[in-house]
Amino acid sequence: MMQVDLNCDLGESFGNYKLGDDETILPLITSANVACGFHAGDQHVMNQTVEIAKQHNIHIGAHPGFQDLIGFGRRNIDVTPQEVYDLIIYQLGALSAFCKIHDTKLYHVKPHGALYQMGAKDSKIADAIVKAIKDFDDQLFLVGLSNSELIKSCKRLDLKYKSEVFADRAYEDDGQLVSRKKDGALITDTQQAVNQVLKMVKESKVTSINGKEIDIEADTICVHGDGEHALNFVKEIIKQFKSEGIEIKALN
Amino acid sequence: MMQVDLNCDLGESFGNYKLGDDETILPLITSANVACGFHAGDQHVMNQTVEIAKQHNIHIGAHPGFQDLIGFGRRNIDVTPQEVYDLIIYQLGALSAFCKIHDTKLYHVKPHGALYQMGAKDSKIADAIVKAIKDFDDQLFLVGLSNSELIKSCKRLDLKYKSEVFADRAYEDDGQLVSRKKDGALITDTQQAVNQVLKMVKESKVTSINGKEIDIEADTICVHGDGEHALNFVKEIIKQFKSEGIEIKALN
Amino acid sequence: MMQVDLNCDLGESFGNYKLGDDETILPLITSANVACGFHAGDQHVMNQTVEIAKQHNIHIGAHPGFQDLIGFGRRNIDVTPQEVYDLIIYQLGALSAFCKIHDTKLYHVKPHGALYQMGAKDSKIADAIVKAIKDFDDQLFLVGLSNSELIKSCKRLDLKYKSEVFADRAYEDDGQLVSRKKDGALITDTQQAVNQVLKMVKESKVTSINGKEIDIEADTICVHGDGEHALNFVKEIIKQFKSEGIEIKALN
Amino acid sequence: MMQVDLNCDLGESFGNYKLGDDETILPLITSANVACGFHAGDQHVMNQTVEIAKQHNIHIGAHPGFQDLIGFGRRNIDVTPQEVYDLIIYQLGALSAFCKIHDTKLYHVKPHGALYQMGAKDSKIADAIVKAIKDFDDQLFLVGLSNSELIKSCKRLDLKYKSEVFADRAYEDDGQLVSRKKDGALITDTQQAVNQVLKMVKESKVTSINGKEIDIEADTICVHGDGEHALNFVKEIIKQFKSEGIEIKALN
Repeated sequence: MMQVDLNCDLGESFGNYKLGDDETILPLITSANVACGFHAGDQHVMNQTVEIAKQHNIHIGAHPGFQDLIGFGRRNIDVTPQEVYDLIIYQLGALSAFCKIHDTKLYHVKPHGALYQMGAKDSKIADAIVKAIKDFDDQLFLVGLSNSELIKSCKRLDLKYKSEVFADRAYEDDGQLVSRKKDGALITDTQQAVNQVLKMVKESKVTSINGKEIDIEADTICVHGDGEHALNFVKEIIKQFKSEGIEIKALN
Repeated sequence: MMQVDLNCDLGESFGNYKLGDDETILPLITSANVACGFHAGDQHVMNQTVEIAKQHNIHIGAHPGFQDLIGFGRRNIDVTPQEVYDLIIYQLGALSAFCKIHDTKLYHVKPHGALYQMGAKDSKIADAIVKAIKDFDDQLFLVGLSNSELIKSCKRLDLKYKSEVFADRAYEDDGQLVSRKKDGALITDTQQAVNQVLKMVKESKVTSINGKEIDIEADTICVHGDGEHALNFVKEIIKQFKSEGIEIKALN
Repeated sequence: MMQVDLNCDLGESFGNYKLGDDETILPLITSANVACGFHAGDQHVMNQTVEIAKQHNIHIGAHPGFQDLIGFGRRNIDVTPQEVYDLIIYQLGALSAFCKIHDTKLYHVKPHGALYQMGAKDSKIADAIVKAIKDFDDQLFLVGLSNSELIKSCKRLDLKYKSEVFADRAYEDDGQLVSRKKDGALITDTQQAVNQVLKMVKESKVTSINGKEIDIEADTICVHGDGEHALNFVKEIIKQFKSEGIEIKALN
Repeated sequence: MMQVDLNCDLGESFGNYKLGDDETILPLITSANVACGFHAGDQHVMNQTVEIAKQHNIHIGAHPGFQDLIGFGRRNIDVTPQEVYDLIIYQLGALSAFCKIHDTKLYHVKPHGALYQMGAKDSKIADAIVKAIKDFDDQLFLVGLSNSELIKSCKRLDLKYKSEVFADRAYEDDGQLVSRKKDGALITDTQQAVNQVLKMVKESKVTSINGKEIDIEADTICVHGDGEHALNFVKEIIKQFKSEGIEIKALN
């Protein structure tokens, strides 16, 4: 039976600021990427998010990002691999402490935002991320863009990984995401997005923006929980996956 | 043979800002309290500090503080016990991650600055600190002011502790430190300070600012490494301890 | 003709975090207190908030707070008067720069959250706030709790002020607000709240929580724009003020 | 008589962290670039720095940088021109407030670190910086790298400027600084550095790293006050300038 994981970023509130609707998306997903206090989240939000994720039997992962709250970790920063290594270790430790007090397990690490994008393209940044995860706990999975430098680094440095795919993003011929700055980067038609995901899961293929068939691994699908449209899309994916006999499950 | 521990705050640099002279004090002390990135320290400094402390076989402890870099964690903030609990967990996790990658052990936790002072006086804050430490790792020691609410909370909640004493601070009749705002709070004469410490270690007594003999536990002595005067004072303590047959050792 | 001002806190979003519904409340109020980047707001939000406030001909004021984003400036911090002075000057300068580029005027300053509460009770903090405002621009008004140390300090140091009243908060016999921790602190019945405000504006009196008639100055009423209930309350106040012949106007 | 300005970055301390030796360099320089609280400096340091700069009759300028304290504003961040515009306005306002309370004038603006470097190379960033300065106060000077996009933008947008040169940095054939990552980027021989500066001031020429004579404008020289070597170098420049009849003066 085919299986796929649905992952979503959670715990992105900060202090008095509420972001996302974690309670609503949690019953629909199988893995949660929890912000660790640098680009989003804070110690109280982390505590609560780990608690409710555990209640829903969701696999908890860390979602470390740049120390850039005002930019929400989405702006590239010209960091050294050592800087990346240190910020990953720090954030993994912080989140795993909340897993520890709730007597639950940390399963995976998905770099956030600009750190994810830089790691996908730059092998030195990717290696720093992978090395940090492995040094911290070599049983963790990295979640990274399918075909990217992050995945190559996991193969090179021998860390477990899950290749991530996006339902609503177009792909370049080389398997990278089409930049949001280009036309056609976003797939706005729900059925087209579902079809893309179904093909990725069932055939390990995606049709690039130029019409080329390319290989892709689809271990986990990135979904969002903010807003009615995002939630409906998740429900539609789940419905069609079930009718196709694809099990939604946190992979191990 | 009598034994006592010498502890010092380390790893207080931040980014481009250097504070203290960690390399110089390290060979003289037996326990290091490492800042965890909230009131001082950052992920890179933490990584380096744990590394050099390990090289010197110093017992590493966490030194969590308020999220108040500009105030260096020295300003009381009107926090709830839950806020205290969460910030302790977060910082313990972050520091322990650096211990983990350096394959070394976290031994103790000493709250920093205003958190230490508030915990010494307020049983609810003390309990939040002690509960967080115990939930995270019940083999850790708390380092807290002798006779304070922190120590009482450890007894109440069954956490190991080390009572801390100060060589250069005068004591009130109830065993609390004389506030720095009062005359006579600081003992500036080196021999007088050494004598106070010797008496605390050998007799478990201290003479209060009002001339009263009070009971005190002296498991560990707080020393400082910033500046020539502080370093000379540490050397003088060590010399006189040796001649009195007191062993300087990280207690377990 | 009687006149009263309606003021509301605006510009409290930060980076990716949106807070409040500034566009909706703006047409209803006459004065805006704009967050200055310490407890809330950021440089981009400030730029936009000043722009839209100007478009609605609202009187713009600064809303400086503690440097405590995670606590939203609502936690008392044990600061010195000098620290208060410096943080007020910094934030006034920052906000007035955005007024300058939009060719509009800064009218008033209302301290935020814990700074407001501490200034209301502590004459030294109040004096630091008032002195900072006056040194920066002696034509500015302070907006502070009626009968509080902030108002007394304005009288003492000769700064213009507007006494602020709250529709939905109960008052102590001495004119201070009943603490939110006490029963009866909040007036939840809309008509009771409107009646309290009408009485404060028309008779300069309020009935304390103990039933005592006390004097109060009501130059400006604090309202909120977050949520349907708050908006409806503002509309109800405006309606009843109009029927009583009270003009809603930014005072000068 | 030839004239040149000596400028130095000041006010880079933060909270408990002290950086640089402002008191020692102040009597030697003619212009100070004061950090504004984003990459360095804080409201208290700004207050004090403006005060002592005024006492020494130094021309005060703003030194705005990226909101990146841990990176000291030295790391490129992928910002939009609007983000740059807003952070310049905010910081100019904050610093000018301290000038206002000390009844002294703000003369110039020098972007800091990565913002300076990005503005030197990217015309859109340069325009955002220049437009912000001009919108805030069109009588201010920009201080920017000679021949750079910052200077070109000043000419294009009609803002006054001072071209800055570096004594101890080698130049490329196009007038840009040789990257610190390349060999020969730094001129370590004192006399060679002094000679380079003398030639830049007297002949408006510099010999590039490839031996080419290129045009350069030398209105102001960047010097440093941290450490004995830097101070001695400043003194040597001043001595040789005097013997060559070059007046050291803040230009207007």
